[in-house]
Order: sequence, then structure tokens, then C-alpha cells
Amino acid sequence: MSDPVSKIGAGVATRRSVLRAGLAAGVALPAGALAARAEGPVPDPLITEVQDWARYNGDGVDAFPYGTPIRFESDVIRRNVPWLTADVISSINFTPIHALDGTITPAGCSFERHHSGAIELAKPDYRLMLNGLVDRPLVFTYDDLMRFPREQRVYFCECAANSGMEWAGAQLNGSQYTHGMIHNMEYVGVKLSTLLEEAGVQPEGEWIYVEGADASSNGRSIPMEKAMDDVMVAFKANGEALRKEHGYPVRLVVPGWEGNLWIKWLRRIEVTDVPVQAREETSKYTDTLADGTSRKWTWVMDAKSVVTAPSPQVPITHGPGPLVITGLAWSGRGAITRVDVSIDGGRNWREARLAAPGQSMAMTRFYLDFDWDGSEMLLQSRAIDETGYVQPTKDALREIRGTNSIYHNNGIQTWWIKEDGSAENVEVSS
Amino acid sequence: MSDPVSKIGAGVATRRSVLRAGLAAGVALPAGALAARAEGPVPDPLITEVQDWARYNGDGVDAFPYGTPIRFESDVIRRNVPWLTADVISSINFTPIHALDGTITPAGCSFERHHSGAIELAKPDYRLMLNGLVDRPLVFTYDDLMRFPREQRVYFCECAANSGMEWAGAQLNGSQYTHGMIHNMEYVGVKLSTLLEEAGVQPEGEWIYVEGADASSNGRSIPMEKAMDDVMVAFKANGEALRKEHGYPVRLVVPGWEGNLWIKWLRRIEVTDVPVQAREETSKYTDTLADGTSRKWTWVMDAKSVVTAPSPQVPITHGPGPLVITGLAWSGRGAITRVDVSIDGGRNWREARLAAPGQSMAMTRFYLDFDWDGSEMLLQSRAIDETGYVQPTKDALREIRGTNSIYHNNGIQTWWIKEDGSAENVEVSS
Repeated sequence: MSDPVSKIGAGVATRRSVLRAGLAAGVALPAGALAARAEGPVPDPLITEVQDWARYNGDGVDAFPYGTPIRFESDVIRRNVPWLTADVISSINFTPIHALDGTITPAGCSFERHHSGAIELAKPDYRLMLNGLVDRPLVFTYDDLMRFPREQRVYFCECAANSGMEWAGAQLNGSQYTHGMIHNMEYVGVKLSTLLEEAGVQPEGEWIYVEGADASSNGRSIPMEKAMDDVMVAFKANGEALRKEHGYPVRLVVPGWEGNLWIKWLRRIEVTDVPVQAREETSKYTDTLADGTSRKWTWVMDAKSVVTAPSPQVPITHGPGPLVITGLAWSGRGAITRVDVSIDGGRNWREARLAAPGQSMAMTRFYLDFDWDGSEMLLQSRAIDETGYVQPTKDALREIRGTNSIYHNNGIQTWWIKEDGSAENVEVSS
Repeated sequence: MSDPVSKIGAGVATRRSVLRAGLAAGVALPAGALAARAEGPVPDPLITEVQDWARYNGDGVDAFPYGTPIRFESDVIRRNVPWLTADVISSINFTPIHALDGTITPAGCSFERHHSGAIELAKPDYRLMLNGLVDRPLVFTYDDLMRFPREQRVYFCECAANSGMEWAGAQLNGSQYTHGMIHNMEYVGVKLSTLLEEAGVQPEGEWIYVEGADASSNGRSIPMEKAMDDVMVAFKANGEALRKEHGYPVRLVVPGWEGNLWIKWLRRIEVTDVPVQAREETSKYTDTLADGTSRKWTWVMDAKSVVTAPSPQVPITHGPGPLVITGLAWSGRGAITRVDVSIDGGRNWREARLAAPGQSMAMTRFYLDFDWDGSEMLLQSRAIDETGYVQPTKDALREIRGTNSIYHNNGIQTWWIKEDGSAENVEVSS
């Protein structure tokens, strides 16, 4: 690719200059309104003529007992990449983060990752066993779980392999594909510590082994310290029952830690003295380093961010002037405290505006109200969390971890925004 | 009805006693687990036998590009009441708040209120006119709006007529019907003040008149002070585009104020010196008092709450012991700071636990972890907001406002919980 860095020169607009420049964004009407419009810009039939939607009645309140998006938004969907895996029952699809705004991810377009497909398990058939090194092995029905004190929290869930294809360089053209193995929902459930206390963990119980009711079972080991801290046995997301593909009726929520631990269709929790070393934590979900050895137990998802618009799927469709640059940031170690944006590939940074104060282990939306001069940009964002951790460059990560892994790539993403407003996934040397 | 007050006597459980009592909720397995289960309770085939969902693969990630709830949740839907209005295109349906938890309302089951049906308006066809007493009349396309600085906030939207049928006594049997004309979503949009500043409001501009693109237009007047404060021109709710039935592509968000002001398919904002006195603010959306005069401009939704479970649609299905009492609280004047729960029809109150600190003009979830002794209850909740306002009884409201109105009933709701766990909408004298 050519190096557009030298052409970058647009300044950040002040709020005042954004508003002034924004005048160009509206069509000015002569004072006196509609009757006088003939002397102004070309009359807009959408304003001067009565449209069908103002002439006829629309749908009644009985039309859609459960609503879905309007047909014009049919491209805002989860997408899978057929060549990525051998079979769709052990695969992934991607949240259309490029088309969303705010922080809540609607369940309908929140990514899925299955190891043997999404199963259908009715509440009356649901059982959760808690056994192993406990004083009282227990089996809970769904109704049993509903009798324990609940909590409500917003958390992100990110697949360890999110951005995994990017280790080898810019691969996938769009934030949906590079960063879309993530969603952010408001969960309601019972703290796992409540259930463990109910069973009585024995002194040698240092780990739990958790598994799902699906054929893969997807078993994973979690240290007791985390299990007793903030892990949740959840049954609602964004107010309603979990969707089938997200573990209906009960899944594990492991705040800030990789999504593979968030066991869906949760069926068993065994208290153990040592980790089980199951398939999903030995042959997979370890980070193979340059020398062939592996990092293990790399559960935490480190601070990360991405510009969702403009981006390859969301080109700039207007000329120079006001441009909202926006994206998402998150950290498995706490709250996001700052996000910086660069338009010159990381040479200079300016602080973005957080849409709301960062919440621990939840997504944060950032905005940069920018006055684009129409020249190329190498657009990046970097997240900083409450521990002071700064999202690293991809090169800095590769120096330590090599390129053999597909997991835990939280490197800074670059979009090359061209003069025509189109965007491309590129790499810059750091 | 009989007066069950005298029979009420259950105490609030401490956390410790809830957990102790909760033992009964799980089936205890003998230590040694499955092999030894024959000596314990009757073997549970759901645990001892391999089920189909653990034997066969489920759906692949290509099955549902946009997901909807699992079929077992088909009763968690918006419901309309055919006898309530003459036609479904000028009617209401109700959010199934009884079946939800947390605070976010999924768009798919968020209530609708239309005056001439839900129209279909594509983004390229969208225009927003800003005219009247402004220096520069403007017309914005959808793309224009996307270039202004955005904000993100969670707000509740409540129809002024929510609980309106209850003025005349206990009418509708279920929180979905008594309190379901409400939803709570995370909105993203442009502050209306930004657009008004762009147009330049003239000194005599004291009001705005806002209308929708549907046939009803549903015009309303709003004081300039509110318009310049926190009103939002919104295009996303819960991350994604507004649903058709909620005003796609653009609606007005008027935080804390009655839902009728939240103009859907927003097409025009006219700056005026006096209110327009339109149909929807004279013949309707005024509160007729006992003497036949009317309260006008009653925009704010005062503090209110309701127990969502147990409730008529969510009976208690188990015997005495741990019971989670939960509900929702909100206030148009700020954040909820406290919710009290009574089990004896308002004689005694105990403080509920807020699931998260109250957010201004957004819903708050409350829980009371209760040890039910199996006797009847007259279950109530009352909300208190940051201004110190305490949700009143229905009788206190009727004393001032009479029973002629259908609007702004924020009185305390009572559910009569019977010994068999069923519940009924009742009134108690206060």
C-alpha cells in the first residue's frame, strides 16, 4: 500500500467550529418556509408533496407481538465466514458492530460460537449439578435457581479468538469481522458464590470445572478465587430470557474473561483440587508462542478498542466537514478510563469523548467530533483502563508473542480512510 | 374480597437465613455422586440418562442471521386488549414486564402506541424540517443528522395513560396490563439543542411544536426550556436502528416526560412563541378533574413502581421459603433513590435492594430477598426519587384528582398473594 501518512493534516474541530461547519449539512430554507421555497434550493418532493406514509394508516398494534428489525436494516445481521471453519456447528459468526451505536448489543445480532451447535433445552428439563469437593452435592432445577438472590450487571463477552486472523497482518475488511466476536449485555442471574456456599466448598477445593449440556460439553477449569468473586449463573440478558444460541435457559457469565469460559446450557459445576486440563484448555485456548511453547490460563481479555465508523463497511459518504468518528472500548481488568484516537497511524493522539463513564468489564462507546479536511487518514484508537494499561500496537504484541497464536490479539487496529471516503484494513509499522 | 391483612406475618429473611432456607431448593445428592444416587432421592432421568441435546449437534452459526426468542418463550410478547380501543391502528399494546428482569427492555417486546398505525419510512426518504421562529430554517436528511455530535443515554418512555384503567379500581389482572405501557432503552442521537442552535432560535421562540410523518402527525407543544435541556433526536435504541413501530428512522426522546411527546417518524420541529394547543394536548392528554376542569401541560411522569413478580401472571409455584420479590421503579424527575416493599397492604414497609444505583429518568430494578411463610400477602411497592418525592397511594391521588382522568396514575399497586401462590389485582384502603 502507499503511505498516506505524509498527507495527514486535518485538525480536531472545536465544538463551535463543528457546529458552524455543520451548517453545510442542512439545506437552508428561505425564511417564510414552504411557500417561498421556489426561490431557494430545488424543491424537495419529500417535503412539498404529501407522501403515502402520511396519507394511509400503518400497521396496528396487533401486527407483530414480538417485533424484529424493519426490512431496510436486513444487512445488520450476524455473518459467518464459511472458509474459517470446517463446519457451521463448530464455528463462529460476527456481531455487526460497524452498524451499531451505543453500548448494548441486541441479542438478535450478538455473535455466536458453538462447539456442537446451539441446542434446544426447555426449562422443565433443565438441571444444574454442583458436585465434587463439596459438603452437599446439589442439583438445581430452573425454578430452584429463581429462589436465590439475584444480581444485575452489564458485561462484555469476547471470544479469545476475536481479531485472531489479524496476527498475520490485515486480513478481514470490516470491524464486524476483525472485532465482531463480542457482545455486551445486561445480565441477571445468581452469583455462583451463592450456590457454592450453599453446597459448602471443602478446603481442598481450589478450582471448579464447568461444562455445558451440549454434545461438546466444552469443559473448562476456573480458579476458585474467580468463581467466588464475580462469576454469575445467568438466565436473562437484556431483560429477557437468554436466546437459544446464547445458552438458554442458563449460562455462565465470567466477567472480563474469555468467552469460551462462559459455558452455555450450563449443566455441571464440579469443585476440584486441580484443573482438569480439558481439551478446550490444552489443545485449544492456549497461546502458542514463537518458540513453540504455549502460554496457558490466559483468561483475561486485556484492554482493546476499535473504530467502528468510519471503517471498511461504513465509508464516509459525504465530503469534507463534520464527521463523527466513533467506536467501542473494553477491558477485562476494569473500567475504560480513556480512549485516544489517531488519524496519522499512531504518531499523534487526541482524547476521544466517552459517551458515558466507563463501567467495569463492560463496553464503552467513544466519539470524536472531527472536522475532516478530505485527506487520507490512518485511523486508530487505543484504550486505556483503570489499571493504567494502554492498548499496545500489533507489532509490540508480536515481539513478545510471535504470530503462532490465534488468541488474545488486542493490538491497535488501523483503517486507511481514503480521499473518496472508502476504508481499508491496513497495517502500519509502529 | 376478604381482608387478608390480619393473616400477614412473615418476616424478611436475612441473607444468612435465605441461604440456609435455600437448601430446600436444591435436591441434596449423597456424597459420592451419581453411583450412590440410588440410595438418595428418586433418580432423575434428566441427570442419569444421556439426553438428545447431549447426543446430537444443534444449529450451526448460519441458522439465524438475526435471532429471535426460543419457542418456549412464545408467551413473552406484547399484548393488546381488543376492547380497549375501536381500532388497532389507534391503540396500544403492553410490554410483558412481568416476564422480564433487569432494566433494559428488548425492542422486540417494547410496547407500541400508534395514532394512525406504524408507518414504513426509509432513510433515503427521511427529512426533518426545522422552521418557524429561527434565523435559518433547515431541512436535514438522515445522513446530515449523522454528522452532528451524538450522545448516549438510557431513558424510560411511559405512556401518560399507563395504569389509566386503574383509576376506577382494580381492573386488569397482571403487571403487563396495569403497568406495561413503558419501556426502557439505551438511546443514541443528537441533542435537539444542537440542531436548534444550528438554526438560531429567535428571542420570541418560547415553544417548539413537534410532529411525526404519519397520517396522525400527533403534534405536540414543548417549552423551549425543555427542548434546550435534554431532548434528543434519536436514531438508535439498544444499539440498533429504531424499530419501525418505535419511529424508524428518527424519533424524539423527551426524558422523563409522557410518551405522547416522544414523536415517532419525526418530520418537523417548528419554533413558536405560544403553544399550538393541538388536538393531542387539548381534547386528549389533559387530566380531567372531579369538577370537570382539566389539568394541562402535565408532562412529567412522577415517581412510580410496581412489583413484577410475584404478580397475577407470575404466581408463586413453590411452597414457603425463599422467594425473590422483584419489580421496577422510575421517576421523570430524576433518579430512584429508594424503593420500599410492603406485604401487609402498606401498614409496614421494608427497604428493597436496588440492583444498581438509580440513573436519572431510567428504570431501576429492585429485589427483596424474602422468606415467605406461606400466608397471604398484600404486596405493594413504593418508589422514592432524588427529589424526595414518595409515590402516593391511589386514594391519595383520587382525593386530589378524582377519577375522571385516564392519565398520570402513579398510585401504589397492590397484588393479593394467596396461600396457593396465585395473585390478584386488588385495592386496599389507605
